Amino acid sequence: MTAKLELFFFYGSIHTYLSVMRIDSLAATAGVEVVWRPFNLREILIEQNNTSFSKNQVRLTYNWRDIERRAARLGVPFAGRPPYPVDPDLLALRVGVVAAAENWCPEYTKATFRAWFLDKKASGTPVHVEAILGALGKSPDAIAKAQAPATDEQLKAAAEAARRLGIFGSPTFAVGQEIFWGDDRLEDAIDYAARSSGK
Amino acid sequence: MTAKLELFFFYGSIHTYLSVMRIDSLAATAGVEVVWRPFNLREILIEQNNTSFSKNQVRLTYNWRDIERRAARLGVPFAGRPPYPVDPDLLALRVGVVAAAENWCPEYTKATFRAWFLDKKASGTPVHVEAILGALGKSPDAIAKAQAPATDEQLKAAAEAARRLGIFGSPTFAVGQEIFWGDDRLEDAIDYAARSSGK
Repeated sequence: MTAKLELFFFYGSIHTYLSVMRIDSLAATAGVEVVWRPFNLREILIEQNNTSFSKNQVRLTYNWRDIERRAARLGVPFAGRPPYPVDPDLLALRVGVVAAAENWCPEYTKATFRAWFLDKKASGTPVHVEAILGALGKSPDAIAKAQAPATDEQLKAAAEAARRLGIFGSPTFAVGQEIFWGDDRLEDAIDYAARSSGK
Repeated sequence: MTAKLELFFFYGSIHTYLSVMRIDSLAATAGVEVVWRPFNLREILIEQNNTSFSKNQVRLTYNWRDIERRAARLGVPFAGRPPYPVDPDLLALRVGVVAAAENWCPEYTKATFRAWFLDKKASGTPVHVEAILGALGKSPDAIAKAQAPATDEQLKAAAEAARRLGIFGSPTFAVGQEIFWGDDRLEDAIDYAARSSGK
């Protein structure tokens, strides 16, 4: 049985950048398959009354410094603070949901986070999304699909899956019912997935 | 110059257990001196409007599972969920402040967290504090000292030091002005301290 790990993630989450940049190589080395599951974290945070951190400047200042140091330690490129917050209308997320349904979510997501963090192009701005689709050789029709009712249904299903697992942040790695929150648990989650599959 | 790391911590914080159990051995190996700095995190969280997590059952459930898994991974004993929350009147903290002033904070703090996590004796309950003082060969006078105005002054100074550094959680490791939050940053902080001292 191939070991499987679900990556639940949100396009507006800053620590998610580190995992998006690291997961494929770590998972491949461990023989673990990654399923990319974009979901609307904003909705979950509101439900859980867990939105105070975004207004906490002390914590936000720390988080940027943490990402800078972790990126250096982990060998992930970092080019200073990118725009924040991003994806106000959830367009990056909605296109990600389309991409997941059509099996091009990993490349789309990596391109989106690289554009945000390295080229400072805020995720979800329509012109940036179009440029990413163009660079990946995808039709701009993905944007119309992203706004269609089918995408609403997929978003609803993803949020419901996140709720069932007890997810409250991004990135979260799920192995069956077991969840691991935060880029700093990526290695633990991959080990757990590899062990669970009996390797 | 000896590398120095300040451990800012709160007696009611559950992830702090892992650091209290690990820091001495990791720091000694790296040649880093640890300064134990108990502070009133509750006051800081209220100031920062950062108290929603304690009411978030989804997140609390995750946190206990995380501690259980991390303890196993890190070789720290874990005996199931201890009582929570603890130290309602800050007695454990106040005695910790006295202990820090008199240079017996590490042994007092380790005994307090071991009693809480392994013997399920809630920190800050007077009879538990007395038992810990007795086991350490300390006079029960420490409890009277803990309630004296001098302790209020020391608590005020510790909170002010935490505010100046931008601290928002426990444990936080400080190396000069650089702070690292969470047990999962302990190794990073010790490396940083060792490098900063020119070793």
